Amino acid sequence: MARVAIDVLLKRELLDPQGRAIERALPDLGFAGAHDVRIGKHLELDIDAEGDELAARVAAMCDGFLINPVVETYRWRVITDDERADAAADAPTAVDA
Amino acid sequence: MARVAIDVLLKRELLDPQGRAIERALPDLGFAGAHDVRIGKHLELDIDAEGDELAARVAAMCDGFLINPVVETYRWRVITDDERADAAADAPTAVDA
Repeated sequence: MARVAIDVLLKRELLDPQGRAIERALPDLGFAGAHDVRIGKHLELDIDAEGDELAARVAAMCDGFLINPVVETYRWRVITDDERADAAADAPTAVDA
Repeated sequence: MARVAIDVLLKRELLDPQGRAIERALPDLGFAGAHDVRIGKHLELDIDAEGDELAARVAAMCDGFLINPVVETYRWRVITDDERADAAADAPTAVDA
């Protein structure tokens, strides 16, 4: 079994109004220097498979249900328990900053 | 300048109704073997900073605006252009599967 993280964004050539709204709001809130903001979905789930079987399952699941392949693209990776965005820990930490 | 990816999920101890709905729907759609589905937000943005300054900016931005620290946690990482979820490429690929 693997824990998989899937990131979904609108295709780069499409306008992302929500990202644009965040980008416009940030300077007024005191956070300058942020550009090209894109926002989408993040999923984390356990899948009972490994290797090629896992890759095939993720692809089928994404293309067939989780994303809209007409306007969205996704990227996935296998994560460890420590890499979960909802890691039971206290403070958030950078993975490789 | 760094491109940063931020993943936001509800805290692990909280019910994620949207994740639960996806988990329930998957078997009926032919995708068995998925468990503990959590869904949240994924952001990617450029920030004019590096190192500690970058980490401080991301933390301030997340805690002060992008997430609700009462119910959500986040994790962030620096990504390369190839790692963007909206990579201009064709087929999505696993980062480290």
